[in-house]
Amino acid sequence: MKVKEIMDEEFIYVSPDQNIDEVSIIMEKGKKFTTPVVDKDIRLVGWITSFNITQGLRDGKKKISEVMHSTDSVVHVNENDPARLAVLKITHNKLVNVPVLNDEEVLVGVVRSVDIVKTLSHLYEIKVYKIFKALEKELKGVSWDELMEASAIITTRRTGEHVTAEEYELRIKNATFGEAIWATGGLEKFFVGLIAIGQMVTAKKVARARK
Amino acid sequence: MKVKEIMDEEFIYVSPDQNIDEVSIIMEKGKKFTTPVVDKDIRLVGWITSFNITQGLRDGKKKISEVMHSTDSVVHVNENDPARLAVLKITHNKLVNVPVLNDEEVLVGVVRSVDIVKTLSHLYEIKVYKIFKALEKELKGVSWDELMEASAIITTRRTGEHVTAEEYELRIKNATFGEAIWATGGLEKFFVGLIAIGQMVTAKKVARARK
Repeated sequence: MKVKEIMDEEFIYVSPDQNIDEVSIIMEKGKKFTTPVVDKDIRLVGWITSFNITQGLRDGKKKISEVMHSTDSVVHVNENDPARLAVLKITHNKLVNVPVLNDEEVLVGVVRSVDIVKTLSHLYEIKVYKIFKALEKELKGVSWDELMEASAIITTRRTGEHVTAEEYELRIKNATFGEAIWATGGLEKFFVGLIAIGQMVTAKKVARARK
Repeated sequence: MKVKEIMDEEFIYVSPDQNIDEVSIIMEKGKKFTTPVVDKDIRLVGWITSFNITQGLRDGKKKISEVMHSTDSVVHVNENDPARLAVLKITHNKLVNVPVLNDEEVLVGVVRSVDIVKTLSHLYEIKVYKIFKALEKELKGVSWDELMEASAIITTRRTGEHVTAEEYELRIKNATFGEAIWATGGLEKFFVGLIAIGQMVTAKKVARARK
């Protein structure tokens, strides 16, 4: 995934010549704590945060150019960078968002930490049930009941807690992937459990075919 | 996972009686765009954003109580709520962070969107190689080379692109879980592919045992 696939192309920007008062109102209305500063060709020339604004207002400064951060100190990414680079930069520098430039240094978007939370959390929200339905389809010739039965046996074996097939089905009906990897103790363990279930139902299928 | 496990217990807070000037400096120094407002018992009574501060400074207001949001309008979570509730509230309301209260309405922490990005992205950064190593351990009696061979065959079969075992190994050496689910077209597809690999190596093992 590239930066341009997760960036927001709707963003506000201001010019170095604008008044601090005016920009503070733009930021309040747009609900933006930080804003890129650009020249007439929309090339990035600086960055403003609410902290520059509050300081500027207290000190009686007038223009954005008097309080903005210069481009050299602005963390940014290129639209063709991998999306995870934007995630790493936001995390590492504790940013609310990061400006996205194209190869001509023109501002083309903004990656927002709130959008990243949304994208990342989507994976965690996938229902475990959906994974098992895909698994059932893949394990041709295995019924849903056999799959639940095997899952309950593997779970009992691994956790020591007795679980019936019905209880197992109820459990995965509501569980999300995020909860499942948390409950099993990590991604690898969750996956290894699935493999063990796959092996058990396959073995049963083979035994049945031989009869 | 509960809210208290992901919240930051180090946070700044201010009182309704403090001057806007003074609070703006505290927020600048602490690099916080938003701040809880509390009473003398650290119970939440309001919320301040940089927008309230800039507006207050422009309008010549004096006290925080004149510009703060009242408690009713402040999105918050309880320390015992599931962590995903904090994630949902942050995403839904596009917040930078959300205050955490205990059962006595006392402010005990703050969940920051930047910390959530860090926690969530951790899963995406797990190396696929690690998953395969767990798989090798689970599929007792299957060598690493057999596993890579089967993986290459399944990949070729599913994508149409010819991949050798060596190329496959090189690929997973550097790939992260996030890249893998993106490349395979989703979490379920990624798991189904792994299950197919597990089935193929198990079938080979059985065939070998019979010889």
